[in-house]
Amino acid sequence: MITTRPFALTPGEPAGIGPDLCLLLAREAQPHALIAIASRDLLLQRAQLMGLSIQLIAVSPERWPDQAAPAGSLYVWDTPLAAPVKPGQLNTSNAHYVLQTLTRAGQGCLDGHFAGMITAPVHKGVINEAGINFSGHTEFLAELTHTEQVVMMLATHGLRVALVTTHLPLKDVADAITPERLTRVTRILDHDLRSKFGIAQPRILVCGLNPHAGEGGHLGREEIEIIEPTLQQLRSEGINLIGPLPADTLFTPKHLEHCDAVLAMYHDQGLPVLKYKGFGAAVNVTLGLPIIRTSVDHGTALDLAGSGQIDSGSLQVALQTAYEMAARQVKSH
Amino acid sequence: MITTRPFALTPGEPAGIGPDLCLLLAREAQPHALIAIASRDLLLQRAQLMGLSIQLIAVSPERWPDQAAPAGSLYVWDTPLAAPVKPGQLNTSNAHYVLQTLTRAGQGCLDGHFAGMITAPVHKGVINEAGINFSGHTEFLAELTHTEQVVMMLATHGLRVALVTTHLPLKDVADAITPERLTRVTRILDHDLRSKFGIAQPRILVCGLNPHAGEGGHLGREEIEIIEPTLQQLRSEGINLIGPLPADTLFTPKHLEHCDAVLAMYHDQGLPVLKYKGFGAAVNVTLGLPIIRTSVDHGTALDLAGSGQIDSGSLQVALQTAYEMAARQVKSH
Repeated sequence: MITTRPFALTPGEPAGIGPDLCLLLAREAQPHALIAIASRDLLLQRAQLMGLSIQLIAVSPERWPDQAAPAGSLYVWDTPLAAPVKPGQLNTSNAHYVLQTLTRAGQGCLDGHFAGMITAPVHKGVINEAGINFSGHTEFLAELTHTEQVVMMLATHGLRVALVTTHLPLKDVADAITPERLTRVTRILDHDLRSKFGIAQPRILVCGLNPHAGEGGHLGREEIEIIEPTLQQLRSEGINLIGPLPADTLFTPKHLEHCDAVLAMYHDQGLPVLKYKGFGAAVNVTLGLPIIRTSVDHGTALDLAGSGQIDSGSLQVALQTAYEMAARQVKSH
Repeated sequence: MITTRPFALTPGEPAGIGPDLCLLLAREAQPHALIAIASRDLLLQRAQLMGLSIQLIAVSPERWPDQAAPAGSLYVWDTPLAAPVKPGQLNTSNAHYVLQTLTRAGQGCLDGHFAGMITAPVHKGVINEAGINFSGHTEFLAELTHTEQVVMMLATHGLRVALVTTHLPLKDVADAITPERLTRVTRILDHDLRSKFGIAQPRILVCGLNPHAGEGGHLGREEIEIIEPTLQQLRSEGINLIGPLPADTLFTPKHLEHCDAVLAMYHDQGLPVLKYKGFGAAVNVTLGLPIIRTSVDHGTALDLAGSGQIDSGSLQVALQTAYEMAARQVKSH
């Protein structure tokens, strides 16, 4: 074992499948200590509903585990709910509970207690309905860690896709592609591929913004006026960038074989291919944070909570990715 | 044989790989008569360069073939170049030649001489540099056939993707998603899936415009204000539409297994997945035309012209698709 610090796991929305995933996972031993930050009662109730017998081992800041839990058991840092949970039924009363689990995990990483955090899905809508302005895990952790710019990257076997813009209405995307943002995002991507993924000379394929990457200005001028000059400047800093290339020809073996990550300009340009390729086994990694954070790539699936009819593939990839990132960070220190 | 009419094949840009693809193809017998509309001299020269021995059989409006050419031969409707061609070197002098081959093919389809037309790539830039306003095959054929609205659809094994908007700068996409356009495009898609693809009750998955299909209005309101009401109206006409769905979860087996086509709102939302999945074996079909037209899904690849180092997979799929469409039309008449 390279690291002895435990990892934090947040099951997210209590009415969704997050608790179920954590329990399914606990049937087998993990290679590292893994602490679910959640309500113990919730986990007990859900385990019963799913017919799973998982031993919940209480841990807390006074008593962190220093080795992995055995198969069939799960470390739990008990974090009480505000109201009982019915699977599938959202309740604004528990919005603060969800945020408390994230704060505990994120602050624990910042304080050095945890080697990294892995998050199951939250439900943005119910948190906002509770009167809390919340755009997502990523933005929440950026604020908690005082990070100005973070980068969303999804990864699956053989493909990583990072985004210049994320959750913006499509009509606002073109204006958001500025030299400043493109520079910040690209630098973070290059830096984190080196420091968190152990890639010595990352090669990054960059998508154009417009169809056919603008086709020489016939289908939009952002490639000529913004993207190309910015990439040229970044190349002079030693970043290996190929593009801008048309998104519909970039995602083919000829190009992908020779790259470490794709930088897409917006959400639906990059993620459909990644999720198609990595169906059920993709991980969402937040780059640019001072901590390691990975996440599943799916939603709360409220209708499946408690059913046991779920696939923990994405959570397993999220865990594996966090373990590998932590091992590389330890090595490089 | 269901149809005895020949099919027209246009090699497109003479300096690109179109002529090469036609010659490679002629090594094996086709199931139907197939007429290359091109310069005979060009084909002879290119065959020599590639070390291929293909017999070119002259045909013309006075003398159409009524059966397939044998392996190693190709029917040619000689269409003279304006200037000799060097592989890889664009020449504005031959822009009119390219358009003449398209006119001959398209008019021949309209006049009932040809069962359909299959196009190899043209180079839009050099045609425009020659002083001719040309946005692409699709628009050219729409004008030739007096068709107001056409729909671009790409297809590969197990997936068809049609587009509401095609070659627009990204910043103009949101404004182009109007109820009128969405209605016209969806009706054509439904109609042609029935009439040209023989699907009795087509099921169409529709993408949202915004990430997460707008997430209930948090990430854009076009889904609520434009797309959903328009789909509801179209459903009342008997069109089977599912959506709008987030593009990054739509392209997964759970959804795709139960659909006949995906309707994407714009180019880079739908085509990266299709080309990733169908690499080297995708076909571009123009719906809404009164004629059958299919095309390769790739460009002129000027640097590979004459090299012989090319893959005719996409042209073969384009031919096969045109043959199947023609057979279905004959059956349904």
